Amino acid sequence: MMRGREAERELVKKLREKGFKAVRIPASNPSAEPLPDVFATKGDVLLAIEVKSTWEKKVKVREEQVKKLFDFLSFFPLNGMALVVGKFKRRRWTVRVVEKVEDIIISEDDEDLDMFIQKLFKQ
Amino acid sequence: MMRGREAERELVKKLREKGFKAVRIPASNPSAEPLPDVFATKGDVLLAIEVKSTWEKKVKVREEQVKKLFDFLSFFPLNGMALVVGKFKRRRWTVRVVEKVEDIIISEDDEDLDMFIQKLFKQ
Repeated sequence: MMRGREAERELVKKLREKGFKAVRIPASNPSAEPLPDVFATKGDVLLAIEVKSTWEKKVKVREEQVKKLFDFLSFFPLNGMALVVGKFKRRRWTVRVVEKVEDIIISEDDEDLDMFIQKLFKQ
Repeated sequence: MMRGREAERELVKKLREKGFKAVRIPASNPSAEPLPDVFATKGDVLLAIEVKSTWEKKVKVREEQVKKLFDFLSFFPLNGMALVVGKFKRRRWTVRVVEKVEDIIISEDDEDLDMFIQKLFKQ
């Protein structure tokens, strides 16, 4: 696992380029607080995002991390989505929409991030 | 100036006791990101809060810190309020509602925090 900080910064940039307001929360991972690595808004859409960067083909995201996304979303009366974004081998960006609190394994074969954002942008 | 971390934790506790969802953002101050020390929600009310703890009677809050509160609020289509909360001499809690981006000086004679929260709670 690589440090996720660089991937988080790149993700914020990507989202801003697509018309989202986006921000990275520094040092959110070690904390027990219900905070995502990155969050973004566009109108009443709120994205709570866990970011993983890896040289592997798959990476596990623990239930505790997933729970933080939903806890964060629960603060806001908005149209919230919990996402896990993966950066695989420094070039392949993917996204998984998370539906419930459980351990999940994301893969480099998940949905392409840029296509996903594009789709959201059209809404 | 004392470290604000303890005051931030106490403030989160106070807000939760009054029916808000509240969370502290660790390490938000050194960051250039548009993040408050603490934020809280109740229905469509969103509080973005800078917290100052001091042994003095007054304390200055810099324009850059105030700007972060408004930048954070601008992410959300909610009823946002920018607040500076002071903890003076470890016992007197005050609040100032900030209306615009500028240097401000808060004082131990500002509005009592508990009364202010109580008022919000009744809305």
